[in-house]
Amino acid sequence: MGRKINPENQIQVMERLQEVIGYVFKEPLTLREALTHSSYANEHRHKGLKDNERLEFLGDAILDLIISEYLFRKCKAMPEGDLSKIRASIVCEGSLAQTAKILQLGDYLQLGKGEEMTGGKTRASLLADAFEALTGAIFLDGGFEQAKAFLEKTLVKEVEKLGPLEDLYKDYKTLLQEHIQKESTTPLIYEVTGEDGPDHDKNFYVEVYHDTICLGKGVGKSKKEAEQDAAKRALYTVRH
Amino acid sequence: MGRKINPENQIQVMERLQEVIGYVFKEPLTLREALTHSSYANEHRHKGLKDNERLEFLGDAILDLIISEYLFRKCKAMPEGDLSKIRASIVCEGSLAQTAKILQLGDYLQLGKGEEMTGGKTRASLLADAFEALTGAIFLDGGFEQAKAFLEKTLVKEVEKLGPLEDLYKDYKTLLQEHIQKESTTPLIYEVTGEDGPDHDKNFYVEVYHDTICLGKGVGKSKKEAEQDAAKRALYTVRH
Repeated sequence: MGRKINPENQIQVMERLQEVIGYVFKEPLTLREALTHSSYANEHRHKGLKDNERLEFLGDAILDLIISEYLFRKCKAMPEGDLSKIRASIVCEGSLAQTAKILQLGDYLQLGKGEEMTGGKTRASLLADAFEALTGAIFLDGGFEQAKAFLEKTLVKEVEKLGPLEDLYKDYKTLLQEHIQKESTTPLIYEVTGEDGPDHDKNFYVEVYHDTICLGKGVGKSKKEAEQDAAKRALYTVRH
Repeated sequence: MGRKINPENQIQVMERLQEVIGYVFKEPLTLREALTHSSYANEHRHKGLKDNERLEFLGDAILDLIISEYLFRKCKAMPEGDLSKIRASIVCEGSLAQTAKILQLGDYLQLGKGEEMTGGKTRASLLADAFEALTGAIFLDGGFEQAKAFLEKTLVKEVEKLGPLEDLYKDYKTLLQEHIQKESTTPLIYEVTGEDGPDHDKNFYVEVYHDTICLGKGVGKSKKEAEQDAAKRALYTVRH
């Protein structure tokens, strides 16, 4: 993230990004469009640059289709409603921004001065939009199969690291409950063990117990959040 | 619509549909799945049939992408927000059902007895869902280009008959107003000329005037609906 890009070297920079994403553009202007935030296009009107919002529109639709197909083929017996829920949890700002971060996409984005100074290159919404635009650009330039290959190497790969797909639309407390129930009928107990910080910025601490054994400790801005955090850590412990 | 399908001739029927849609399935079971409504699958559980809901999920995403690409290429300067609005007006129950009707898709659907008796084969929601499922089936069986070719021959062709794409997200009164303003500043006048029918099923009659000339007459279940209808007819008159 700390790497500096020499603006005189725009062509080399674009080449590096194409290496990272594993796709070479026939029309480099399309890649440039994907990396141009509206704030930059507005600041440099004389250059007549297009911003990436139309490509983002296209990219969003490709993401939906490719993830739909992936889920359809992977989860052969899953009803439509669950497929929709999982898709929504994959094609969302959080996971798109995460994938964009891995590609260091922020480093390649052209932002207006205001956006740049307020940390735009690391902002989740901006990174997620850029990832959508980049997907749209690959589709436009190389067609459906190229866009699919790109997403398989990036977003789908990240998704597959997360564990069973079914888990993506369940909360951690439910998952922990299901895991424990397989072997025991003793209920789980969540206990608030402390809180600190000023009223407007409190932290809550929670521990989850099963049969007097502490399975996990969590922290969060609310009791609910801290419970989810504790369950998530407990799940990790009981599964490994 | 009145054509009867002999159930013993299921193979011939499927062949006829494949002629109509211009695509022959490698895996005929996928086509069958697209035509199986959940009410039929539920009534014939012993047959172990899959209903078309998962294919509908897939088809919806393909429709979104193909129409997005079509609009992106066709409306080169249109902002993202307007592209979204037009897409929503194309990928909607009304236009999908309309396209399904032209293909006589209802004749090929397998419905449970209840659905069949209550006119399921002509119900818009059911036809739109079946059209989505059929699109999903073609994509799954033949890939992206086949699904695109199918939609270009059907839905896109219907859309192109409707006139300028920009019109799709405007209402008829606005369009008529814009058309008239080009040549005159005299305002349009909408006049309710009558109403009939019992209270729960009233019809309103409206005429739209410009400079004492009646441009169109409309009818509808509310004054608003009748005005839109009058404007729609007037638009047709002034444009042709």
